[in-house]
Parts: sequence; C-alpha cells; structure tokens
Amino acid sequence: MGVVVPLDEARDPVQSLKPLMELVKEDMEAINRIILDKAVSDVEMIPELAHHLIDSGGKRLRPMLAIAAAKLSGYQGTGHIRSAAAIEFMHTATLLHDDVVDESDQRRGKKTARLLWGNQASVLVGDFLLGQAFRMLVDVGSLPVLKILSNAAAVIAEGEVMQLAAAKNTSTTEDEYLAIINAKTAALFLAAAETGGAIANRPAEEQAALRSYGKNLGLAFQLVDDALDYAGDSARLGKSVGDDFREGKITLPVILSFRRGNEAERAFWNRTIAEADIRDGDLEHAIALMKKHKALEATMERARSYGAIARDALAIFRDCRERAAMQDVIAFCINRAN
Amino acid sequence: MGVVVPLDEARDPVQSLKPLMELVKEDMEAINRIILDKAVSDVEMIPELAHHLIDSGGKRLRPMLAIAAAKLSGYQGTGHIRSAAAIEFMHTATLLHDDVVDESDQRRGKKTARLLWGNQASVLVGDFLLGQAFRMLVDVGSLPVLKILSNAAAVIAEGEVMQLAAAKNTSTTEDEYLAIINAKTAALFLAAAETGGAIANRPAEEQAALRSYGKNLGLAFQLVDDALDYAGDSARLGKSVGDDFREGKITLPVILSFRRGNEAERAFWNRTIAEADIRDGDLEHAIALMKKHKALEATMERARSYGAIARDALAIFRDCRERAAMQDVIAFCINRAN
Repeated sequence: MGVVVPLDEARDPVQSLKPLMELVKEDMEAINRIILDKAVSDVEMIPELAHHLIDSGGKRLRPMLAIAAAKLSGYQGTGHIRSAAAIEFMHTATLLHDDVVDESDQRRGKKTARLLWGNQASVLVGDFLLGQAFRMLVDVGSLPVLKILSNAAAVIAEGEVMQLAAAKNTSTTEDEYLAIINAKTAALFLAAAETGGAIANRPAEEQAALRSYGKNLGLAFQLVDDALDYAGDSARLGKSVGDDFREGKITLPVILSFRRGNEAERAFWNRTIAEADIRDGDLEHAIALMKKHKALEATMERARSYGAIARDALAIFRDCRERAAMQDVIAFCINRAN
Repeated sequence: MGVVVPLDEARDPVQSLKPLMELVKEDMEAINRIILDKAVSDVEMIPELAHHLIDSGGKRLRPMLAIAAAKLSGYQGTGHIRSAAAIEFMHTATLLHDDVVDESDQRRGKKTARLLWGNQASVLVGDFLLGQAFRMLVDVGSLPVLKILSNAAAVIAEGEVMQLAAAKNTSTTEDEYLAIINAKTAALFLAAAETGGAIANRPAEEQAALRSYGKNLGLAFQLVDDALDYAGDSARLGKSVGDDFREGKITLPVILSFRRGNEAERAFWNRTIAEADIRDGDLEHAIALMKKHKALEATMERARSYGAIARDALAIFRDCRERAAMQDVIAFCINRAN
C-alpha cells in the first residue's frame, strides 16, 4: 500500500492556497456562520448528519473561489456570501449522495454519514441541503446567479448518471471520461467562479473568462484526485490509496493503462475493474502497470495543461491581488497531497 | 387480502375530477410537452428512467392545481405552465427518492425504477429532475414562485427525514404524524396552489387562502391514502393493500389502533411494526383491529374535516368555474379509490 509516487517537483501546496485564504478570510467567517445557521432543523437527525460532513475539515475551495471571483469583479454588495454558502451546501449534498451511490465507507478520514446514519438519511439530508441552497439563492435574489446554479445542479446529476453508466466499463475513452468529469466536478467550479462575475454584472467576456478558469481548474482538480488515489499518502489524504480501484471506478489512470497495455494487462483490468474480482496484490500490480505505462505522469500532465488554460483565462483581468490568489490556487490543486 | 371497506357514501370520484380536468386541459397539454422536452438528456439512462415514472399514468394533480389556482387568480401570462411542469418534476424526484428510502418494489402497478435501474440511478435521476425543475423556475423568472418552491423542496425533505426518524415508532402521536405529512405531502400541494396566486401578484389574503386550501387538501389526500392502504382495492389502486403494513410505516390508522388498543393489541403492533416480525394472517388481524377501533373511519373523518377547511378557504373567491372545479377536487381526493 505504501507506494508513493512523487507527483511534481517539491513545492509546498499549502503555501499556494494561503493568498486565497487571506483574501477571503473575513467573508469565509460569515459563510461559516451562515452554513451553521442553515444546517439547523427541528428534525434532530438533519443538523447531526449535516455537521458530520460540514465540520469534517473540507477546504471549502468552491465557496472561496466564488468569493475571490466576486472580489476580482469588484463586487461591493453582500449577496456573494450567501451564494457561496449555497454552493458549499450543493457540494455537501452531492457528497452525501455520492457516498450512497459509491457505497463509500470513508471520507476525509472519517466514517461516511451513510455508515453512521444509513443510506436513507443520507439521501434525504442531501435533498434538504439542496433545498436550503436554493432557498438561500432566492434570498440573494439574483436571477443570473440562480440560473448558473440551477443549471449546475442538473449538470452535476447528469454527470453522476454518466459515471454510473460508464462504471466498470474499461473501454471508456478519455473523451468520454472528460465529459463525465466536466459535468460531475468541473461544472460546480465553473459555476462558483461564474457567479462572482454574474453578481457584479460584469461584461460577457469577463464572465466567460471566469467560466473557463473554473472549468479548467475543476478538470485539473479531478485529474489530480484520480492520480492521488493511486499515488497519494493515505494518512495525509484522509482516504485510502486504492479506493477507486476497489470500487471499480474508471478514472484516467485506468483508462490510459488499459489502452496502453497488452492483452494480458487488459485481461487484468477487466477482471479487477469490470468483474470486480480483486485479489491480494492486485492493487500493487495495478500501480506497477500504471508506472510501466506512465499513466499517473500522463494524468498529471493533463492536469497541468488544464491548469495552464485556467491561468491564461484570467489573463484578461488586471494584475491584482485577487487574480494572483486565484492563479496560485491552480498550483495548489496540482501540487496538493490532500 | 380482499378486505374492502367502503370508505364513503357511493359517489363516483372520477366525476369530481372532471371539471378540473376540463378547466386545465389545454395548459396540461403544454405541460406534458414541456415534461417530455425537459426529461431529455444525452445520458440515455436519464430519459429512460424518468419516462418510466412520467408515463406511468399519474394524475398530475399538483400541476393541475397550480394551473387552476393561476386561472382563479386571473393570471394572463404563460409562466404558470413552466412552474406547474417544475412542480411535477419536483414531485417525480420525491417519488424516486421515496422508493429508494422505503425500498418499494411497486408504484402505480408497475415495478419501481429502483428495481429496474437500481437505487443509485434512482437517487441521481431524482437529483437531475430537481435540478431541471429549478432551471425551469429560473426561466419563468418569478422570485416569489422560486421562493415558494425552494422552500417546499427543503420542507419536503425535512418531512421525509422526520418520517424516517419516526419509522417503526408505534408511540408516535397523531400530532407528530400530522407534522410529518404536513411537511412531506401537504407542503407541495400548498406550494402548487400558492404559486397560482403569487404569479398573478394577488393580494396577501388571496395567497393565504390558496395556501390554506392546498395544505388542507394535501392533508386530506395523504390521510385517504393511508386509509386506502388498508382498505383499498389493490387492482384499482395499482399498489397492494398492506404495503404500508409490510414496510412498517406508521400511519394514522396504526397510530389510532395502537392508542385505542389493549395491552395484547399493542404487543401485536410492536411485534409487526416496530420489530418487523410479520407472519401469515397478520395483515388480516391488523385490518380487523382497525375495524374494531374504527381507525379507518376515524382517519377518513379527519380527512373530511381537512377537506372542509380547504373548501372554506376558497370561500373568499367569487363563485366561478375555477373555484367550483377546485372545490370538486376535494371530493375527488376523499372519495377516490385510486
């Protein structure tokens, strides 16, 4: 299990996140208060289950991006706070439903809500958080923001269904896989960044730039996640190396190893991923095949190239603290180990 | 199984629904087109699964009520059509998630989507339909309507969690049960009726009247549903008599029988409902106990009294075709056998 592949030149990823954290610090405190406030319900199980996930030390990257994009857009109001809190609720709802769909036992180093409260409660509390998210957005009252986020909600679900349909299908192409992560992951990054421009009524080209930044950052983020699942350090990741493998998840490292492999190797992927027949030593063999075909390096290479697109997308904005912080996040996503 | 309790004086329930159906006929055709149009996705499984439920012959009572309320409010625009279609999508999403949570095998006389496509797809397609619903509402662009329906989405999920927490608890009180059905069923009836007044910008007292009508109609509808589950005709219901019993669901007939019963009877309810130890002849015995304590009649009596409140709520409107049709629906809900 202890296979750790160095993913990139040494560089402290946490340093890259600091400028963003400094930039949004005050607003994030307000967001955290709103999140606590809106996870409340007379129905005891709702705040209990919601807090399990909310307090579990997620980075709140998506609301931070939404706040940074609003600041970059010169927004002077307060609507970005509730919009960003709604985005985090949408994300939390997705995680709850994901863990049910994937039958996951661990998230961020803790038992999943579905293990502690059951699948049923996880589905329903996810629905509640999604409902609360839209309530908050209606309070903000910006139809453009509502449009962006209702669109994202449908697209994310569409992406999850695509992923379900592709599950265990080793002949999934890289393009098909990109369509999936575009919908299930990048759509919310895109929406988070776009809301910042939309709420400030910025010109179309700036909103398009924010969309492009968010989407490509989201793609990079997901691809790094995929690589880390085979190369990361379990203790720092808060999830076990090989989770995707054990769940038979098709991710880019598998797709590339399958395509670049010989007959015997494809038979291995079909047995383990498609037929879910996993034996002792299979994970180590999978990682060895990925090394042989440089599948993790190729996945990271793709991630870096999406990161470069995200960086260029922001080039139309003036050089400022907000832009610099948002560009540093790209380095964080690519170099992070957790 | 063939225990059929006559629920009310003979009166053809379908006749009571006809005035409403005539009133909304044209708009419902437009709604059906939108529903077909918005259940489309490039992800094959989504339209397949969505259509399984959409085409299964539901009455579309909630969108019909939303349309009728808009007409009663003199609304002249077209936004009520998409709002009503969104309401049906929200309802469909709830049914998909409900069937997963209740582990149901049948709905409307057909196998449930979760049996045919799995729990995972049912959760995700439910999420997709909810996302589409909000997309449609954003297109309508009425913040008051968005507020009503985002609120309903959160309240419905809250009600479902309440029901889950009360599951198998035979000492649930009638008041606690009312709070559950108020949230999980009546909230969407309330919201459907209220949108009609809100979209037409009617005065607060008319919107309050529509809310009261919808809520009490929803309560009556759910209570009749509860009674039918022990008294209905399976073939006409499209679901089996005793489904609630087999699922250990706490409904008003059980609550009343438990409270009115002696020690031995309470032990019976605890064994069957709380401990899920159901043996041959138990359903018949449960129905016999309900007869002994007039639990079904009492449930129907409650339904009729909520129906009366709904009827009175509409009294402030002038006597017109729309009001008459909406009042007739109350009779339909109380006398329906399917």
